[in-house]
Amino acid sequence: MAATQDSLLYSQVETVLASEIGNGALGVGEQLPTEDELIQRFEVSRITVRRAVQNLVGRGLVEIRRGKGTFVAKPRITQELTELTGFVEDMQALGRKPSARVISKEIVVANASVAKQLALTKGERVVRIRRVRLADGFPLSFDETYLPLEIGKKIMKDNLKVEPIFSLLERKYNVPLVEAEYKLEAVLAEANVAEALEMKVGSPIFRIERNSYSRNNHPVDYERLHYRGDLIRFVTRLARKAAK
Amino acid sequence: MAATQDSLLYSQVETVLASEIGNGALGVGEQLPTEDELIQRFEVSRITVRRAVQNLVGRGLVEIRRGKGTFVAKPRITQELTELTGFVEDMQALGRKPSARVISKEIVVANASVAKQLALTKGERVVRIRRVRLADGFPLSFDETYLPLEIGKKIMKDNLKVEPIFSLLERKYNVPLVEAEYKLEAVLAEANVAEALEMKVGSPIFRIERNSYSRNNHPVDYERLHYRGDLIRFVTRLARKAAK
Repeated sequence: MAATQDSLLYSQVETVLASEIGNGALGVGEQLPTEDELIQRFEVSRITVRRAVQNLVGRGLVEIRRGKGTFVAKPRITQELTELTGFVEDMQALGRKPSARVISKEIVVANASVAKQLALTKGERVVRIRRVRLADGFPLSFDETYLPLEIGKKIMKDNLKVEPIFSLLERKYNVPLVEAEYKLEAVLAEANVAEALEMKVGSPIFRIERNSYSRNNHPVDYERLHYRGDLIRFVTRLARKAAK
Repeated sequence: MAATQDSLLYSQVETVLASEIGNGALGVGEQLPTEDELIQRFEVSRITVRRAVQNLVGRGLVEIRRGKGTFVAKPRITQELTELTGFVEDMQALGRKPSARVISKEIVVANASVAKQLALTKGERVVRIRRVRLADGFPLSFDETYLPLEIGKKIMKDNLKVEPIFSLLERKYNVPLVEAEYKLEAVLAEANVAEALEMKVGSPIFRIERNSYSRNNHPVDYERLHYRGDLIRFVTRLARKAAK
C-alpha cells in the first residue's frame, strides 16, 4: 500500500500545481516555489515533490533552468495536422504573427538522400534555403528547404523574409501543390538546430520531413522542419478502419 | 569558399558512411571506425569527421555509447498514421511480433486531466493500465491506458499480456471504436518512461495522447503512448486544401 499512497501524493501535488498553472495563479515565466517551500506547503517528502515537478516538466508545463530554478513554461502551440499547409498559413490560423529569419540561400550538390526525395540524380545541383520561422517573434521552427535548381534559383531571389515558399510556388510560379508525404520523428537537437532555435543541445525536437508534390506526383519541395518540442503539439483525428 | 568546401567534405563523409550502413557493409550493432581511422581514411580534419558522425546521429543511423564508441543503430520502424489502429495491428502490418509486459493494473482516482478526457468528473474512479509494448521482443512503447470504471474493471481481469484492449473492447465487450483524436509531441524521457523503455533519462520520446471514441462521440479509452524516439517514425500523406 505504501507505493499506492506515495503515488497519490505526488499526483496530488502535480495536479494542484498544474491547475494553478492552468488558471494563471502561476503565470508563464513565473518561478515555481522552491522544493523546500513545496515540501512545507504540501507536507510531503522531497522525493514526492521532485517526482511531481518532474512530471510537470514531462507535461511541458514547467521547465528547469539550471542553477536558476523551475519556471512556468510557455504553453504549447496546438496545430492541426490534417491538410498540407505552410508555416505562415498555420500561424495565421492560430492567430499568431509569423515571421522568418533567412539563415542561408545557396546552391548545393544533392546528396543521395536529397536527390532521392526530389527524384533527381545524386550529384545534381539543388537550392537549399535555411530559415528560422518565428511565431510572435519567438523561434518555433528551423526549416531546411531543398528545391530543384530551376525553380529554386528564382525563389532564391525572392524576399523569403516576407514571402512563404508555398505562396511563391503556387501564385508567382504557377506550380500547384497537390499533396505531401510527412515523416514525423522525435529527436534531440543537434548543435546547429539548437543554436537556430535558441535551445540547448539535446532539447526535444519534433522533426518533420515533408515531400510536397505537384500534379502527376511530381516532387517540387523537400523540407526538413525542426520544431521546438517544448512549444508544439500536433493534433489529428483518425477513423477506425472498417472491421474485417 | 572555405566554408563551402568544408561542408562538401563532411557531407561526403556522411554520405559514404550512410550508404555503408544502408547496404549492410556496416551492420546493426557494429562499431563505427574510430575518429582517427576515419580521419586517415577520408583525409579530412577531426572537425569534419565529428560533424559527419554528429549528422549520422541526428539521422538516427548511429548512436554514441559513452566511453565505448559509436555504433550502427537499429533502423527505425516506419508506421502509418492514417487510421485508428492498435499496437498489435500496427506490428502485424509491419511483420513484427508484438508482445506486452503488464506493469500495473489498478483503480485510481481521475485527476482533472484524465477526467476531462473520459468526460467524467474529477475524483471519479477509473482503471489505469500500464504496459510496455514490445516489437520482436524489444521495448518500443510504454503505454498508460485509462478506462471508465465499469468496462475497465472487466478488462483488468483479462489477460493483457496477450489480448489487445482494442480487440477486447470491440469483440468481447461489443464497444465499437469509431475514431480517435491524436495529440503528437516530442518530449524527453522522464525516469519512469526511461526505465520502462530501457533508455537513459532525457532520451527522445514520441508521445501520443489518444482519445478513442465509440458511437455518439462517447469516449471509451484515453491513452498516453510513449514511443522510443530513436526507433519510430510515423508517416502520413496530407492533401493540399482547396485554393481560396
